Amino acid sequence: MTSSPRHLSLKEILQQFRQGTLRSQDITECAIDCYNEELGAYRDFRADAARQMALLADSAFTCGTDLGPLQGIPVSVKDLYGLAGTDTYAGSPQALPPAFQVEGPVVSTLRRQLAVFTGKSHTVEFAFGGLGVNSHWGTPRNPWDAQTHRVPGGSSCGAGVSLQEGSAWIALGSDTAGSVRLPASMTGSVGLKTSYGRWSLNGIFPLSPTLDTAGMLTRTVADALIGFAAIDPYYQGRVMQLDNEANQTEPAQFVIGTGDPSLWEDCEPGIAEAVEIALKELSQAGIKVVETAAPETEQAIELFMIGSVSGVELKEFLQSELPAWLDTADPVVGSRLKTSSTIDAEEYLRRRRTINNLSARAHALFSEVDVIACPTLPITPPALAEVSDVSGYGPKNVRALRNTVVGNVLGLCGITLPVGLDAAGMPVGLQLLARHGSDARLLAMAYRIEQILGNARERLGAPPLAQAN
Amino acid sequence: MTSSPRHLSLKEILQQFRQGTLRSQDITECAIDCYNEELGAYRDFRADAARQMALLADSAFTCGTDLGPLQGIPVSVKDLYGLAGTDTYAGSPQALPPAFQVEGPVVSTLRRQLAVFTGKSHTVEFAFGGLGVNSHWGTPRNPWDAQTHRVPGGSSCGAGVSLQEGSAWIALGSDTAGSVRLPASMTGSVGLKTSYGRWSLNGIFPLSPTLDTAGMLTRTVADALIGFAAIDPYYQGRVMQLDNEANQTEPAQFVIGTGDPSLWEDCEPGIAEAVEIALKELSQAGIKVVETAAPETEQAIELFMIGSVSGVELKEFLQSELPAWLDTADPVVGSRLKTSSTIDAEEYLRRRRTINNLSARAHALFSEVDVIACPTLPITPPALAEVSDVSGYGPKNVRALRNTVVGNVLGLCGITLPVGLDAAGMPVGLQLLARHGSDARLLAMAYRIEQILGNARERLGAPPLAQAN
Repeated sequence: MTSSPRHLSLKEILQQFRQGTLRSQDITECAIDCYNEELGAYRDFRADAARQMALLADSAFTCGTDLGPLQGIPVSVKDLYGLAGTDTYAGSPQALPPAFQVEGPVVSTLRRQLAVFTGKSHTVEFAFGGLGVNSHWGTPRNPWDAQTHRVPGGSSCGAGVSLQEGSAWIALGSDTAGSVRLPASMTGSVGLKTSYGRWSLNGIFPLSPTLDTAGMLTRTVADALIGFAAIDPYYQGRVMQLDNEANQTEPAQFVIGTGDPSLWEDCEPGIAEAVEIALKELSQAGIKVVETAAPETEQAIELFMIGSVSGVELKEFLQSELPAWLDTADPVVGSRLKTSSTIDAEEYLRRRRTINNLSARAHALFSEVDVIACPTLPITPPALAEVSDVSGYGPKNVRALRNTVVGNVLGLCGITLPVGLDAAGMPVGLQLLARHGSDARLLAMAYRIEQILGNARERLGAPPLAQAN
Repeated sequence: MTSSPRHLSLKEILQQFRQGTLRSQDITECAIDCYNEELGAYRDFRADAARQMALLADSAFTCGTDLGPLQGIPVSVKDLYGLAGTDTYAGSPQALPPAFQVEGPVVSTLRRQLAVFTGKSHTVEFAFGGLGVNSHWGTPRNPWDAQTHRVPGGSSCGAGVSLQEGSAWIALGSDTAGSVRLPASMTGSVGLKTSYGRWSLNGIFPLSPTLDTAGMLTRTVADALIGFAAIDPYYQGRVMQLDNEANQTEPAQFVIGTGDPSLWEDCEPGIAEAVEIALKELSQAGIKVVETAAPETEQAIELFMIGSVSGVELKEFLQSELPAWLDTADPVVGSRLKTSSTIDAEEYLRRRRTINNLSARAHALFSEVDVIACPTLPITPPALAEVSDVSGYGPKNVRALRNTVVGNVLGLCGITLPVGLDAAGMPVGLQLLARHGSDARLLAMAYRIEQILGNARERLGAPPLAQAN
């Protein structure tokens, strides 16, 4: 090996693996070198286990055994997923009982492909929060600010950091109100939230069975295309098929709507501006960008503001199954569980009904547009010091989730891709929301958009704290 | 036509239709003759519409067009199901809005087979009650007591009466806590509650999405075998297949468990006795009958006693979708909705969790036995006068549902077949509960049991109020 594989795309790696010019051991060793304990992406970084899996993947290639696109690829796993050989803590101070540590279909699909698991990445406790704060384990550091410890976004708070530092090419996450897209946006990564029900939730700690979805963070949309085809139960590893679909998607044929004005209000300096510039560039490249009414968007935000259903669902789950974990909850989690307990059964069912009704009506939002575009979140990643106590945390958390939660309440698929830096020099994400079930088409459009705008490295450069690599 | 087709079995009718020796018009005219307005089975008996459908079915036979087993067969439809051409009231004083009158898969499967719909049979309002009382429309009369107006069981309160009077061969019902099995047992009919999720609930008024199941009442198990194969999405009309399976089911090969003692407690005179006699006969015929522990049974009853989830789910549905209907609710329904409103969201979710956990564990109940047998209900059908006010109604309703609700909470399939008369001369049902998904095997076993015990007419004779036919 002559040059570092640090910045190779997944496509390049896949090809080189199969040409015999690169080994999984090479990129795994590179990933281990890149791991930066001070950024704190992982609860359990497993260098030796990763080396063993890389060896296995290489041995399989040597035998002519190709078990899927992610064979030999370093993947970090959010510590909400069961992963054989290591415990699941779900961000809590204590390992979960074995019944809640079972490896589910998303992870086992990767395992069957002989992916290389680098370890368990940090999560907000029980995934219940959007900023990435965890007072039990410490909050991973956002690599885009060399001076101040800013939050990396959550709840998949180690996921984006693992990609940016270079210790993984794919980071598994989960998204109940924005927990894949927020950390992706805040760290300059790409984050895909799949349509409700598309990827199995078995083997993932349940925050809200009504709203939970599995998802994935990657460095680029091009990488996401490969990761999605590898994991998705409908594509079953057929990367070429999705690649063809993406390349046949003509930018001139799709329409971006800018959604409801409520998605653009109260953005911190430089955020709406960066997204508007990107949309202008896309428009100049021939994509139709139109203003659209989307009242369901505002209703989804209203439901979130009055309290949604996830707090109640989480609280009941902990009370029934893990009462000791409720007692030791992180203040930024536990305080919100206490306040979410005051609704009666009918109010809970009414909220579920609202979610069902809004989801059913959301189809109509996409009769004239293919995607709804907006800033992924309206705030710059705050300094940890600003949000480490409950009073500072609460309002910021609610503001951070405002635009992403729309995708969960409406059951949509959504993606965020980095399009610029805000006034504080932190990454800004462009969120695209699309019709339930149109995940592959959403990825295809995002892929073409990335080709127009340039990928994260081309457009944003490297994060200051990861430049050394 | 020389003799009345009044007492022909479905098997005989199917054969004669296809031999050209009997016409749908003949049996439909017979059904219309048998319709007894004083028994009050129907909210809307549709003689003319039935005649038209019979003519259509006969015309199809003449063309050599055979669209399925129930072509030309008179079927009554519980007024909880949407049925094109007539309104759905769900037992309320006012027709439902059109959105809640849509014809769903169960009815449209029958319509595609050119079944003859005789009309909409009465239901307890919103299906929320087990005795069959409806003060808006009047309570159908149980044909087994010529002196006293006794209740016919509910909520499918017109269904069993329609079979016993002879106006239908199949009666569609629904079962959330026993609403198919109770009216079947109380009227000397057979009632099948399908496994949770097996038959679509679309087009059926929702009482409790957590517990609702569709089902069917027939005069005999032999008829049920044909009706089930006709409606069931897995059998898709393959009557011969199910018939073969049933005939290959050897009584010596199956095991009946008598379930938890709680299912046998506090039975009114003659009920447990009649069921015990039937089990003794089955044992003498070579079926193994064993005592079994079934603690989940008792836990299911406990959940029902503290309030289950259906009251809350119905109340929220009415509040959100049909508030005017809540205002006019029948006292025996409305009074229970009011008392069911006092739980909080966590308690509701805890009850759902209990249902899920018990359902999951219910599989183990059937490791040593094929079915759990018990009296279908522990009480004799009360006189209407005893239960027409709320104070008399409440306790009787709860007692009536005790044994059937077990099947709903555990997600099982269940059947009741008449096995004798109690001390009051009213029919007694034998309930058989079987593993989720084993509906066809349950029917096969019940079919063999019916062959041993004799069917309703052979064992019980005819109900006094239907003897004239």
